[in-house]
Parts: sequence; structure tokens; C-alpha cells
Amino acid sequence: MTHPWQDPALSPGVRAADLLARMTPQEKIAQLYSVWPGSNETPGGDMAPLQHALSEDIDLTELLPHGLGQLTRPFGTAPVDPAEGAARLASLQERIRSANRFRLPALAHEECLTGFTAWQATIFPTPLAWGASFDPALVKEMASAIGASMRSVGIHQGLAPVLDVVRDPRWGRTEESIGEDPYLVATVGTAYVQGLESAGIVATLKHFAGYSASRGARNHAPASLGPRELADVILPPFEMAVREGGARSVMAAYNDLDGLPAHAHPRLLTQLLREQWEFTGTVVADYFGVSFLESAHGLTDSPAGAAALALAAGVDVELPAVRCYGAGPLDEEFVDRAALRVLTQKCELGLLDPGWAPLVAEATVDLDPPHMRALAGQLAEESVVLLANSGTLPLAPGVRRIAVLGPLADDPAAMLGCYTFPRHVLLDHPEVETGVAVPTLLEALRTELPDTEFTDDPVAADVCVVAVGDRSGLFGRGTSGEGCDAADLELPDGQGELVDKALASGTPVVLVLLSGRPYALGRWADRCAAVVQAFFGGQEGGPALAGVLSGRVNPSGRLPVSVPRDPAGQPWTYLAPPLGQRGEASTLDPTPLFPFGHGLSYTSYAWQEPTVDDAAFATDGETTLRLTVRNTGERAGTEVVQLYLHDPVGKVARPVARLIGYARVPLEAGASAEAHFTVPADLAAYTGPDGDRIVEPGALELRLGVSSADGDVRYAVPVTLTGAERVVGPGRRMRCEVRVK
Amino acid sequence: MTHPWQDPALSPGVRAADLLARMTPQEKIAQLYSVWPGSNETPGGDMAPLQHALSEDIDLTELLPHGLGQLTRPFGTAPVDPAEGAARLASLQERIRSANRFRLPALAHEECLTGFTAWQATIFPTPLAWGASFDPALVKEMASAIGASMRSVGIHQGLAPVLDVVRDPRWGRTEESIGEDPYLVATVGTAYVQGLESAGIVATLKHFAGYSASRGARNHAPASLGPRELADVILPPFEMAVREGGARSVMAAYNDLDGLPAHAHPRLLTQLLREQWEFTGTVVADYFGVSFLESAHGLTDSPAGAAALALAAGVDVELPAVRCYGAGPLDEEFVDRAALRVLTQKCELGLLDPGWAPLVAEATVDLDPPHMRALAGQLAEESVVLLANSGTLPLAPGVRRIAVLGPLADDPAAMLGCYTFPRHVLLDHPEVETGVAVPTLLEALRTELPDTEFTDDPVAADVCVVAVGDRSGLFGRGTSGEGCDAADLELPDGQGELVDKALASGTPVVLVLLSGRPYALGRWADRCAAVVQAFFGGQEGGPALAGVLSGRVNPSGRLPVSVPRDPAGQPWTYLAPPLGQRGEASTLDPTPLFPFGHGLSYTSYAWQEPTVDDAAFATDGETTLRLTVRNTGERAGTEVVQLYLHDPVGKVARPVARLIGYARVPLEAGASAEAHFTVPADLAAYTGPDGDRIVEPGALELRLGVSSADGDVRYAVPVTLTGAERVVGPGRRMRCEVRVK
Repeated sequence: MTHPWQDPALSPGVRAADLLARMTPQEKIAQLYSVWPGSNETPGGDMAPLQHALSEDIDLTELLPHGLGQLTRPFGTAPVDPAEGAARLASLQERIRSANRFRLPALAHEECLTGFTAWQATIFPTPLAWGASFDPALVKEMASAIGASMRSVGIHQGLAPVLDVVRDPRWGRTEESIGEDPYLVATVGTAYVQGLESAGIVATLKHFAGYSASRGARNHAPASLGPRELADVILPPFEMAVREGGARSVMAAYNDLDGLPAHAHPRLLTQLLREQWEFTGTVVADYFGVSFLESAHGLTDSPAGAAALALAAGVDVELPAVRCYGAGPLDEEFVDRAALRVLTQKCELGLLDPGWAPLVAEATVDLDPPHMRALAGQLAEESVVLLANSGTLPLAPGVRRIAVLGPLADDPAAMLGCYTFPRHVLLDHPEVETGVAVPTLLEALRTELPDTEFTDDPVAADVCVVAVGDRSGLFGRGTSGEGCDAADLELPDGQGELVDKALASGTPVVLVLLSGRPYALGRWADRCAAVVQAFFGGQEGGPALAGVLSGRVNPSGRLPVSVPRDPAGQPWTYLAPPLGQRGEASTLDPTPLFPFGHGLSYTSYAWQEPTVDDAAFATDGETTLRLTVRNTGERAGTEVVQLYLHDPVGKVARPVARLIGYARVPLEAGASAEAHFTVPADLAAYTGPDGDRIVEPGALELRLGVSSADGDVRYAVPVTLTGAERVVGPGRRMRCEVRVK
Repeated sequence: MTHPWQDPALSPGVRAADLLARMTPQEKIAQLYSVWPGSNETPGGDMAPLQHALSEDIDLTELLPHGLGQLTRPFGTAPVDPAEGAARLASLQERIRSANRFRLPALAHEECLTGFTAWQATIFPTPLAWGASFDPALVKEMASAIGASMRSVGIHQGLAPVLDVVRDPRWGRTEESIGEDPYLVATVGTAYVQGLESAGIVATLKHFAGYSASRGARNHAPASLGPRELADVILPPFEMAVREGGARSVMAAYNDLDGLPAHAHPRLLTQLLREQWEFTGTVVADYFGVSFLESAHGLTDSPAGAAALALAAGVDVELPAVRCYGAGPLDEEFVDRAALRVLTQKCELGLLDPGWAPLVAEATVDLDPPHMRALAGQLAEESVVLLANSGTLPLAPGVRRIAVLGPLADDPAAMLGCYTFPRHVLLDHPEVETGVAVPTLLEALRTELPDTEFTDDPVAADVCVVAVGDRSGLFGRGTSGEGCDAADLELPDGQGELVDKALASGTPVVLVLLSGRPYALGRWADRCAAVVQAFFGGQEGGPALAGVLSGRVNPSGRLPVSVPRDPAGQPWTYLAPPLGQRGEASTLDPTPLFPFGHGLSYTSYAWQEPTVDDAAFATDGETTLRLTVRNTGERAGTEVVQLYLHDPVGKVARPVARLIGYARVPLEAGASAEAHFTVPADLAAYTGPDGDRIVEPGALELRLGVSSADGDVRYAVPVTLTGAERVVGPGRRMRCEVRVK
């Protein structure tokens, strides 16, 4: 007999509701939690905060007859051959569905921030590198490929992207973030979501919300944040990724916001996310985040109490394992609400279809095929930022002998973020090989420059490359990464002394940063022949960097975070009003050494004076800027034109400038192109004194520049908004439309 | 003919209203601004931010016929003999009242944070030192004496105290603040207000509000602050000082709060301050704060626009000089509202009385009489904090030769905060003497220990005293003080190397901090024979410190701010929930080296187990703790018993512990005393998820300890609140009543 919930002709919502009506309370609750096979057996350190302390032995035989909503990290918990992992997952799914009367499988999720976090899967650059590329289209392509590979082994949901806007770069998870500007994070992050979702994988936006604003950059610390800063800085990437990206899941953040933990925050998880933004997917807990309402936030004294708070606020799914949900009575209305969302999503994924069956495992699975390596390489190349160059780069053909120094020069770890499989899992499995080839910088240079001699002695050498930065890891097992926060932005582990030594040799020094956050470079930048900033570039990061040094690759990356002059004085980001900038009232000057958006090229570009279609346009209108850019140098390159808004008078203090558009403009030598920026007035909206998002009439300045710094504005185009002040709602236009001809 | 406004039998409000009705619009507006005689003529640096840029030449002859509301700093702008200053002020007042048809004088205000900021006036310890004394009664006595001396020369209003709760000790104005705990700030600050007001001087609470929470501790930078943190941490001192202290003026803060500048914040200045707290005095601008709405915050593009915003929000008086008020049309309703407040206050001060006349100047005025010096000395003594002591202190009679090192050892500046006359004004008048005797530490030691030999060579010496810390000043003219913010908490100017050198000598080192903020001491504390923390102690700071070193004074100060182990990793204060403390999710450990409340003595104290009158009491009730403390040592001393609240379960994240009461318990050797703490349930109130201040039923822990650190809790008394949850309004009880028998 076929029930309505099994009928593919009906809508997922209707089918899910029918199924829900047939379930016992215990069966409903079983859809709201997960199990994490093997999490107790992992050796060594935690993959999630307090993992070993909070993981409990689960008796699957007792649990499974009620069904099981979710399955945690079948590939990311320990190294497993992809084909074998797929077979194991299929067999586990068979066991799960055989045990419950509806024959429902679990929804399996995995990490996938820098690629599918599985052994032998392609390792892509880390999100700061995506930000540096200013190339959402490429990020989308990457995410689509990641999604396809996850899908091919039976995964349904990916716990990415991270949409936290960097507020204090000392935070260890800065490397997992796209940058310090909400528009850049929104556009690049939404592209990732679109890519992952296009492959049928549920994208999970994290961490909702305010996590990056933790006090003192200490992971999990409270976020001292008012509603306006939340609305104008923290939330826009989530809103765009929900509305335009079609993300189907959102993960609550560990932190509290002005005292109220995100996991117990109905205004955030329900009123804002669902009622205003019309989000219909699932809200999942961050790992152990429901438990933390009891053990860390002190909002309750029992797991059952934590479950009641989280579920009422709008956390549909407890992850990574069941501890609270079901530990005590829950309001039936909230259980139904959450279970309906989970079942609807399972239905969309085909998991309610009578014909659904676990994947038939193949004998071999290639999670690192050539087209993915190529994508990883292209993104790595686009993300390298040339910060300074006195002419030493690209390395001249005459350079015969290169000294390569620094702890990161010949270490694959230099390329890998904390959510890559080798850094996330393999640190506890030293006997297991990396799984994919990750050429080091030195190896890549040897390949790139086969006729050059390499040495570790700067005296003698024509040029000295010094590679410094981070090794990423989790909870103290790195200098960057989750739980690896920094007290200041001094290069870690005394690496600064190595730079001093290299400079003392008198040989021209090319300083290469391989890091998960910006570090203070004021002590050396002026004395170096060149400075190159790479964020963790993934498995192709070494060749990309070598290509930039050799000149095979013309650098086109731009800074997604400001690089400070001095290590202390944090936090600061460019997104500050006049009194948040250098001024006469404080001895501290937060002006960065290299500003957000900065990046050099091996060619030169000339910008013609832009034209504007309408210098005056209505508060519900738009205008278009047209800018011609010409490559005036002798080789091809890509200019990144950045459009910033300067709003001189408003009802609250506003940033001096904020990014509202950008365009990558690839140009052959001598070629020119026209970039069109169509700017809706909605982009001038900000949250006013009453909490409404408003667009005011009055003067604005549209600043076209090569970075966020005042001195890098090439043209400041005055425009005027006319008509009445408007309150713009959740349906507002969030993008500057860009065309390059 | 006598008008109602001249009739002393009528109430000030009635008289002011009558006078207001007789005034032209221009006359009303003239009551809302000030002039600052001589501010253009001061040489050198600014006393207020942008003072020289924003001060304009005023034509008094043109201005005065309309009247003049206020007069700025007749004594604090340049050095003037007190009697001569009083005569000049009287003559200026005569000119002012002669020029207007109502014969109204101006209301004259001065700075008075660490004493009347006038030449030759007693210089008291700085507010951090008041906080360290934990002695509101003595602070009240000091403020009463300060007020009396101001009153004696014709001043009506004092621009103190600073009630900003320290949120980031890198901020330069930390020295002007009382500490990092709102209860300590509230009780000590309110005592100051009561003292000043008892002398007839209008006390001015500053800076309202959020100024200390500026991002990155950069002076004037935005405060990222949510409404709950504002209500529970920042506002309570202001509320207590208004409700219990009777403060008659409040100064708006320079910063914005979550985007909205305090000077344009009607919810803060009107709805909260007046409608909820029932404040009836005047709200004054911080110097140039109205102009900053135009020039810094970008809320308007004209002085007239700035005036309209500020006046509408509730800023009654523009200071320090007229620039915006009157520059363009103003809403008559708001002008009347502000002018009525100003005139009512003038009436209360007697300035509307027909018999009012300027003071008849006396030939000599003593602003530094013996009883004030004695008060300054007592407070300085009570504020010295003995942080660590391996037995070297007090200096043994056998000590014959003392090396005294450090740039602050023989410099009076080491004792003086940035609002003392010598640091505030005399830096620009190097030819003028300090005005009062300020013995240096070395001078005081010579007096204290006349038979001891002093040297600057640690080798040879029995003990080495190293005095390091700050020289205070304004806007870059110091290492601490207004506008002198620090990037981290490293001892400034390389003084740490001096400590290293002294330690290398092998001679026991007594490290003496003379500073305006806490500095990181982790590098040295364990290796020093003793560590003493003094904040700027004022003119008697040197003798007080020498007395502590010699043993004449038994130290009883307690830390009003945490002393960190390492320079980086700010901000942090002890007032943090579990996730704001050391934990497994971050590599950063913010645990201080010496916690808030810590301080040692030369004697020892035994605490008996306390009793509690009612272990269970209603959410609108109270209970009393009784604790017997005995001096078990051989000399008299003062123990400071601290009562902290630990609330294990609540609706939002709450600090692990917060101060709710304290008692100084002076004890002769062998004596004991009983301290009674009557704790109203209202003290357990916090701002809940809906913004209401609530008291919940449930378990609490009343922790009696010698500091805020978990390990320093001597007794944790479990109590239970019973009955229904209560919403407590502005009339709540804000104090723990303390009696010592």
C-alpha cells in the first residue's frame, strides 16, 4: 500500500506532513538528532570543542527502531578509502532504514569548507583565499564540483560555507572566513552556496550569528554587539545566501549575542530567519551547541532543559549526536515544527521515495580528479596577493641561485587550512599519508624553475625567498584555525627573527606569507624586495605561488582583510566611521600597512574618467557607472575594480567607505574593457535610529578605487538620491550588477 | 518692582518658569551655552580634543546683552593665583550680569576630578586609587572638601566624577575611572557625588554613556555594545549617582553606541535618564561634543543642524563655548525645555536671587589647607595595593642601603593624573612651579627612612626599589590619560628592560608600579621580592608609598582592575560569563596574574564560617550574612571583605561572579569584628531576554572572598530565592547594606 507521503506527485511539504502525522512522538524526535559513528574511537585531540568529554556511547540497536534523523561525518572522522567509505555508509544506511517502520534513511552530513573533508579528496584554498580572488563565479564552480563529489558517495548535506564577517583577525577561525567586508563575504559566500546546492547538496550557513565578534577574539567568548552592527555588518551575508543562494540549512553559533546564546535566540532563529527572510530549511546546532546551553552558558541545569530552549528558539536538529533532544519532555508543537522541516528536506532529497536505496558502492572512487585539481589550481592562482614589489618579482631569468628559507618553505602544512582532512583528522593518524599530493613551495619552485639552484644560505644567493606564517590546526594544534586564537598579530613562533636575519644578509628578500590571518608586517615591509601574501592555497597552493614568483602567473588577488602595521591595537577593520579611524583624539593609529582591497600586478592599468548615467536618481531607483580600464603594460593581467560607497551625512555613524561592488577585469596587454556598475539606491540603505533599514535622499559619493584606502580612490563620483526617505524591507536589492565588456 | 522669579518664597521651578516667560528666544538660547575665556590664548597642546581647531574668537560685548548661561574653566585654563582668580571671576560675573536686563550671572564650572583643577589646589589621588581604597566614606569626605574649596572662589559646577566602567584598560582614561566593576564604580562614584553636592557644587556625571567601551580602546571610537551590556554594566553607576547621589548634571559621551552618538540619543538622554530615572538636572555636552555631530559623526552638515539634533535629544547646554546653539533656528519647545532646566538650577544655586552678588575677593585664598592635605594623604595610603610579598616588605630595620631606580622614582609626575593642574595645564607653562608640594618617591623615602643610604646602584644595596609606570598627560603628552591610549599592556618606554636589569643584579627587587592602568607583570612578578601597585596618588602619593614600604602604613588597598599576565589579548575584565573565561575552546587564557579585588597586608586575618539569617528568601525579600573576621597577626590592619554573587542558572549568560557588596574592616592586632551584609534580592536582578530587569527564583551562591578569583573564595553560601519571578523597575534597591561591629 502506498501512503501519501510516498507519492512523488505530491509536494514535499504535503508528503512530510502526512508522514509526520503517522509518527509517534519518539519517532518524531528521532528525526531531530544525529549519531556520530566512531567519534569516541578517534585518537588524540578533539575535532569539535569538548568532543571527547561530551561524546557518549550510543546503543544503536536500541536507538534505531525509532528511526534516525541525521548521520554525522561518515568520511571525516577517520581516514577511510573513499570507495570503502561509500560502501560502509551504504551499509549503515541500510541498517538504519531496516530498523524503522517507515524505512527512512538518515540525512548524512559532512564538512566541506575547503573541499570535501574526506581522505584523498581535492583540497581547495581556504575561504580567505576565495575572498582574495574576488571571483564568485570561480568559487561557485568549485563548490559545484565539491558538491558533486560528496553526492557521489552518499552525502546529503555540507557544513559550509562560513559567512562570519571578520571583526577581529586574532580569531583563529579568520582563515575560515571570507573577509572583513560584508558585501565581499555575501557575494562570494552566496556563490559557494549556489554551487553546492546546484549539486544537490544542502548548504549550511554558519555560524548564525555574531561568532566572529567574540570579545578579545577568544573563540566562543560573548559578542558585545548591538542590533545595528548585527544588521548592517554580520547579517547581510546570511540574508543574501538565504534569499539569493537558496541555502537550505543554517547552523546556530556557539556565542551569545549581548548575553543571549544564538542556540536559544528565537528572535534570530525564528522571527528574523523564518518570518522576515522566509527561510524554509533546517536550523542545525553547532556541534554540542545545545549541550553548551547547559554546560557553558548556564541557561539551564539539564540536557532536557537545553533541548527545550533550543527547540523553542528554532534549532531543529541537535548535532553531532543525541544528548539533549529526547532527554526529557518537549513541547509537541515545537517537535512537530522541527520534524516537519527535517522530513520536508528529506523528501526533497528523495529520502522518502519508495524507490530510494543506498548507493551501490563502486570499486574505486576518485575524489581528486584532474578537473578538480585544475579548479583548485586556478583559484589558488587568483588568490595570491602581491603586496609590495620593488621590481624583484617576477624573478628575472638571470636569477640563478635562490635561497629558500623559513619553516613553511618545504612543508605541505603551509597550504592547508584547519578544515582540510590532513589538518583536521590526520594529525591524529601520523601513519597515514596525506591522501593527495600537496607540493610544498620549495618543491613547486624546483618544478617551476628547473634550471635554478636552490640553497638555504642567503649569502651567495641572488634572491632570498622567506616563507613564514601559520600551520593550521584545531584547539591548540596550530597557530591558526578553530580554537587557535592569537593574542596579537605578531608572526608566531619567533618567525620574525628569521626575516630579520634574512634581511641582514643583504640579499634581496622576497617575503612570502602563508597564513590564516593577516600578520603585522610593519617591521619588514619597507626593507623587503617584495612581499607576497597567500592564504592557505590548498593542494595547488605551492605551484600557484611558485607561478607568481616565476612570473608564469600574473598576480590578481586583492586583500580580503587589512594587513596591519603593528601587532597590537586590535580589533580594527576598515569598516569604521571617522571616529573609528586615525584621529586627533587618540595616540593609536589603526591605519593598516596594506588596506583591504590592495593588491599589485606585473602589468599596469589606466582608468579613464567614469561616466554616470544619472547623477541624480530616486531613493527607489538606480544609476549606472561606466568605467574604461586599459592594460598599459606588456603582459596580460586582471584588474580588480572596486566600488565603495561614501555617505557624508546620515542619521547614525556610518563607515567612511564600504564596498558595494567589484569587477574582475581580465585584459590582454594593450587591451581595454568597459565595466558597468548598476547601483540600486537600496545599496545605500543602513539601519537608522529606529531600527528600520532606510534609504535617505541626499548626496553620496561613489568611489572607484584599487583599495579601500582614501588614497587609492581613483575617481569619486558625486551622485544625489532624490525623493522621499524609504524604509527598505527584506526584499531589498542587495547587489550591484556588474558587466564587463 | 519684584517679579515672581525673584521671590525666594516660591519654588525654583516656578521662579524659573516665570523668568523664562519673560525672555526673548535669543535670551533663552543664551542660557544654553558657555564662553571659555582665554582658551585661544593657551600655548601648546589641547586641553580638550580639537580645542585649538574649534575655539573661535567670541565678541563678548556683542554676546553679553542677551545674557550668558555658563562660564568655562575660569581657574583651569592657565595658572592664576587663587585670590586673583576669584577676583577676576567676580569681576567677569559683574560684567556679565550688568550687561543683561535680568542681571543674571553665569553658572561657572570647573574640572575637579582629582581635586579642584586650579593652581595651588590640593591634588588628590586619581579615581583608580579611590577604587583601590574600597572606601566610599573617605571619598565622600574628599569630595566635600573639594566642593567647599571650589565654592569658596565662586565656582558652581564641577565636571566630575567619571563613572565609566573600565572595559578595556588600554584606554587612556582608565586612570580617570574607578574600576572594572559597576558596583564598585557606583558606590564609590556616588559617594563622590554626595560629597561634592553636600558642598553646594553641582556634580556632573560623565560620560553618559558607553565611552569606556570604545573599540580597540581608541579614544572616541564607536562602542559596540548591546542594550543588555549597557543596562547591566555601563548604566548602574549613573543610575545610583542620580537616584542616591542627587547628581544635578550629566555629561553626554563623545562616542556612538551601536552607531548612535550619545549627544544625539533621545532614548538615553531623555527616555531613560529623565522619564525612567526621574533626573531633573541639566545635561551638558562634552567639550565640542555638539560640534562633533557635524565634524566627526557625520550626522549633519552644519553647526545649526548639530544644535538641533543635540537639543532635541536632550543636551541642554553646549560646552565649552558657543558654536552650534544659536547658529540656526531651533525648536522653541526644546529651547524652553532646556532653558527651564538651566534657570531652575541657577535658581537653586541662588543666582536668581535679587541679593546675589559676586564673591568679595579675599586677599589670600588657601586651596591647599592642612586638613585637605591630610585627607589626600589618608586616601593615598588606603589606595596602595600590595600585590606580592615574599617577606621583604615592610623593609626590615636592618636595611641600610637601598637602591632606588626607575624613571618615576624621583619625578613628581609619577603621582599626578591627567586632570591634575600640573599635567593638565602646566605642561604648557614650564616656567610656572607645580603650585603644591609633590614629594617624589625618593624624597619621601629619604624623609621616611632618614638613617638609610640611597643609591642608584643595585649591586651593594640591600634592597632595590624599581619605580616604573606612567607619566600622565593629554592627547599624546603622556603614556596614560585622555587621548593617550595604549596598543597593549606592555610597560611603556622600554621600562621592562630596567626591571630585567635590576633583577639581574641579584639584589632583592621591590617592584613599584605608579600607573594609570594595569600593566602586564607576568614577566617579573615571580622573581621580585615584592610588587606594589599604586595608581596616581596625588601630592601625598609619595609619602603614602614610602610609608607602605617602610611599614608605617599597613597596606589595605585592593585592585579595582585586574592585572594581566601578558600584554596582549585585550580586552578582558573579570565580569565575564564562563565562555568569557579560560576554556577549552581557545588557546588564549585571559586569567589575570592578580585578580580584581586582590591585595595583601602586613598582618593576617582569619575568617569564621559565616551565618545566614535566611537561606531561603523571597524574590522581593532580603537576607543577612554575618561574618566574623579576626586579625591574627601582630599589628593593626584593615581587611576588605568582598561579597560576590554567583548565579548558576539564568535566562541569559551572566558573569561567573560579580561584586554585590564589600566592607573595610579595620582591626587592631588580635581584635575581631563582625561584618553584616544585608543582601536584597534586587541585587540578583539582571536584564533578561525581553529587556526587563528581572529577579528569578532559584539557587544562588553568595561568595565571600578576598578577591574575585574562584580560588580566593573563602566561603560560598548557598541561598535560594523563592516566590515568583519579579520585574524590578527603576526604584529597585541597588545596595548591599553593610555594617561592621
